[in-house]
Amino acid sequence: MEVNIGLIGLGTIGSGVVKIIKENSELIEKRTGIKLRIKKACDRDAQRVSSLNLSEVEFTTNYDDIINDSSVHVVIELIGGYEPARTVIEKALKSGKHVVTANKAVISKFGKDLFSVCDLNKTNIKFEASVGGCIPIIRTLQQSYVSEEFSAIYGIVNGTTNYILTKMAEGKSYSDALKKAQENGFAEADPSFDVEGKDSAQKLTILSMLAFNSNAPEEIYTEGITMITKNDIVYASELGYVIKLLAIAKRTNNELDLRVHPTMIPVNSELASVSNEFNGIYLKGKNTSESMFYGRGAGQLPTASVVVSDAIDLAKKIRNKHYVSPVSFFNNLRQKPIDEIKSRYYFRFRVLDKPGVIAKIAKELGDNNISIAGVSQKEENLETVPLIIITHSAIEKDVKRAVEAINKLDVVKEKTVVIRIEDIS
Amino acid sequence: MEVNIGLIGLGTIGSGVVKIIKENSELIEKRTGIKLRIKKACDRDAQRVSSLNLSEVEFTTNYDDIINDSSVHVVIELIGGYEPARTVIEKALKSGKHVVTANKAVISKFGKDLFSVCDLNKTNIKFEASVGGCIPIIRTLQQSYVSEEFSAIYGIVNGTTNYILTKMAEGKSYSDALKKAQENGFAEADPSFDVEGKDSAQKLTILSMLAFNSNAPEEIYTEGITMITKNDIVYASELGYVIKLLAIAKRTNNELDLRVHPTMIPVNSELASVSNEFNGIYLKGKNTSESMFYGRGAGQLPTASVVVSDAIDLAKKIRNKHYVSPVSFFNNLRQKPIDEIKSRYYFRFRVLDKPGVIAKIAKELGDNNISIAGVSQKEENLETVPLIIITHSAIEKDVKRAVEAINKLDVVKEKTVVIRIEDIS
Repeated sequence: MEVNIGLIGLGTIGSGVVKIIKENSELIEKRTGIKLRIKKACDRDAQRVSSLNLSEVEFTTNYDDIINDSSVHVVIELIGGYEPARTVIEKALKSGKHVVTANKAVISKFGKDLFSVCDLNKTNIKFEASVGGCIPIIRTLQQSYVSEEFSAIYGIVNGTTNYILTKMAEGKSYSDALKKAQENGFAEADPSFDVEGKDSAQKLTILSMLAFNSNAPEEIYTEGITMITKNDIVYASELGYVIKLLAIAKRTNNELDLRVHPTMIPVNSELASVSNEFNGIYLKGKNTSESMFYGRGAGQLPTASVVVSDAIDLAKKIRNKHYVSPVSFFNNLRQKPIDEIKSRYYFRFRVLDKPGVIAKIAKELGDNNISIAGVSQKEENLETVPLIIITHSAIEKDVKRAVEAINKLDVVKEKTVVIRIEDIS
Repeated sequence: MEVNIGLIGLGTIGSGVVKIIKENSELIEKRTGIKLRIKKACDRDAQRVSSLNLSEVEFTTNYDDIINDSSVHVVIELIGGYEPARTVIEKALKSGKHVVTANKAVISKFGKDLFSVCDLNKTNIKFEASVGGCIPIIRTLQQSYVSEEFSAIYGIVNGTTNYILTKMAEGKSYSDALKKAQENGFAEADPSFDVEGKDSAQKLTILSMLAFNSNAPEEIYTEGITMITKNDIVYASELGYVIKLLAIAKRTNNELDLRVHPTMIPVNSELASVSNEFNGIYLKGKNTSESMFYGRGAGQLPTASVVVSDAIDLAKKIRNKHYVSPVSFFNNLRQKPIDEIKSRYYFRFRVLDKPGVIAKIAKELGDNNISIAGVSQKEENLETVPLIIITHSAIEKDVKRAVEAINKLDVVKEKTVVIRIEDIS
C-alpha cells in the first residue's frame, strides 16, 4: 500500500524526514506493509530541494499546490512558528488530508481549534515531535495511558537549558555554558526563547492538554535560567539537590497548577540524571504510579524519526481495513554463542594472603589473551582474602578457560565469581 | 460504541482490569468514545468472581463459553503459563476475536505461531503487559520506532532481582534482601524463576522479536544473581559501577547477541538509577540514538492499566471507521495563579558580613509565615557574602512579600535569588 506524502518545509527536520524515508523505506514496508512516498515537497527556498537530491519529487514554492493535490494523502508540516503553519494545517485538514506536524507553537495555541477541524472533517492530526523529540510521550498519553488519571507531570523538555545547566554543574559559568551550547548547535544565536522558559511552556501546554484534557491556559508562569549561577548549583548540590528547568503540571481536583521555572530536585530522583541536551518526562498517575521517558528532545534524526512514525500511523488510518501483523517478518539472524562474546570482566578470586599469588593468576590470564585493567586486594582478617581483577575487553571463551585454570591453582580457595561489565553509552 | 470483553483469569491482574474498567469507564469513554463492558468472566475458581462484585457479568469456569460467545469482541487472557493459555489464545484468534494478553511465556515461545494465526484470521493480539508492566515499550517498538534500526537493548525487566540488588547495595545480604522482597510481595515464595534470570530471558525474547524482527532463540544464555555478594556490590561501587541484572540484546550485521546476566554498568548511566522494584529499558538506535523507559514493571494496577489500553486499541480496530479526536474533550480546570502555589524555597541573599543580619532576614520570613528549614552562610573574601536559606513549605504570595521586604533591608546588597524546590518522590 503506497501512501503519498506532501512535505512542507525542507529545513533540518524536513531533510531528516527525507533521509529516513529514503534509507528505511524498505524496513518500514516490511514491518507495516506501507510504502511512504514523498509526492510533493514545498519550501520558500527553491535551492533546498536540489540539495536533497529528490529527483522523483515534484517541487513547489507554493504550499497550496500540495493542499490542492488530491493524490496527496498526508501533509507533513515542518515550517514551524504560527503562520503560515497554522493556515497550512487548517487548509490541509479541511481538504480531507491528514496532517503530521512538529509545531509546538501551533498545537499549544491553536490545538483545540484544529482538533475541532479534525472532528468536522474526519481527518487527523499527529504531533509527536512537538514535545520531547523522539520520546513517544504523546502516543503514550493518548494511547497507552488512556485510562489513567494523572496527578503530576515534571518535564525536562528543553535541551538547550538542560545542556547549559549540565555544563554549569561541571563548573562553567552561565555565559561559557551558553557559548558551548551554541558551538555545539544546542542553542540558537538568540537563545532567549529557550533560556527564558517559553519553549518549555508551549510544550507543557501540550502535555497538559493530553494528560488532563485541559484547555490551553491564557498564560503559564514562566521563569528562565538566566539568574542561576554556578554557585547556586554548588549550594544545591551540598543540600542533595540538582537544579533543572522543569515544566510542572499538577492537578488537584478541578485545579491545575502549571509553571516553568528552575527547580531544585533531589539528586537521586529519576529526572536528576537527565543530563546534557537530553529530555526527560516524569509522570505521576493513579494506576501507573511513576514512570519516566528519556531521550533526545531535539535534533534532526531523532525528531524526524517520530514524524515518519506519525505519517505511518495516518497511512494505516487511510485504509481502515489495512491489517498489520504484530511482527510481520522475521530476520534470519545468527545467534551469537556466549563463547564468542567480547566483554570487559570483573573477577573476584578468593586467594591465600601470601606473595606470588597475583603473579600466578596474572600468568593464567595472560596465557589466555586477557589483559588486566586493574587489580585490588581487599583486607580481611582471614587466611584468605578477596582479590578483584578488572580486565580490558576479552573473549568469553578465553575467560572461561582462564578461570577454569585459575580455579585449579592451589592458592585459589573458592570458585571464582565472574561479572561482565557493559560500559553503556 | 460498546465493546464486549471476555475476561479469562481473575487473579491479581484480572481483578485490576475489573477495577480499572469500573472506575475509569467514564473517562475512557470520554477520551475515546469506547465503552468497555466485561460481558463474560472465567476462572477455575468460582469464588473469585463473587469477591469482585461483578453483578452484571456472566460467569463461567469453562473458557470455551467465552470463545463460543459471538457477542464477545475481545478476549483478555490473564491465566499465565503455557497451557491452557496458549490454547485459549489460539482458539480465540481463530474464532475471529482479538486477544489481549500479559503472558510473556506464551508470547516468547509461541508468539511467531500466534502471529501467523492472526494473519490468517485478520485478528490481532496485543501484549504490552508482557514486558515491563506499565512501561509502553511494546507500542513504542511497534509504532513510535517503527522506522528505527536498533543496535542494542539493555533492560532491567525483572522487578524482583532489581529490588534484591538495590537492597544489597544498601547493605543487606542476599538472603535478607530476598526475604524483604518476599515480605513486600516483590518475590514469590519460590523465587527461582526470577532470581535465575529466566523471567528476564522470556522478556528479552519478546523485545528482540520487536526490535530486531528476530526469531525466538532456541535458548538464551542466562545467569542469575544468586552468586552476587554485597561485597561485589561494594567493590563495583569503588570502581564507579553498579550491578544490575540486565537483559542484553546487541545486533551487529546479521548476528544477534542475546544474554541475561548480572552486569556492572557505570554509576552515571541512565539504567543505574533504576532502583527497587522498578524496571527500565534502554534502547540504542540509528536515528533516535539513546532512549530510556522507566516505570513499574509489575503490580496489579500498573499492569492492568496497559491491559485495558490494549483492549481499547483493539476496540478501535473492530469498528475501523471509528474516529477518535486527538483530544476529545476539555475539562474546565481552574488554573491556579502562581501566588497560590505552595512550595519549599531556596533563597540566595547577598548580605553584609556582620552580626544580626540573619536575625533581620529571619524576622521578615517569620512575619510572612515562612518557616526556615536550613541556613548556611558561605565564605567569601568580600564585604558581602552569600547567605543560603532553605524553607519549609510556604505560599508563593507570602514568599514574594517577604523577599520584597528583605530586598529593601540595608544589610541586603543584591536582588535575592529564589529557586523553588520540588521533592519529587
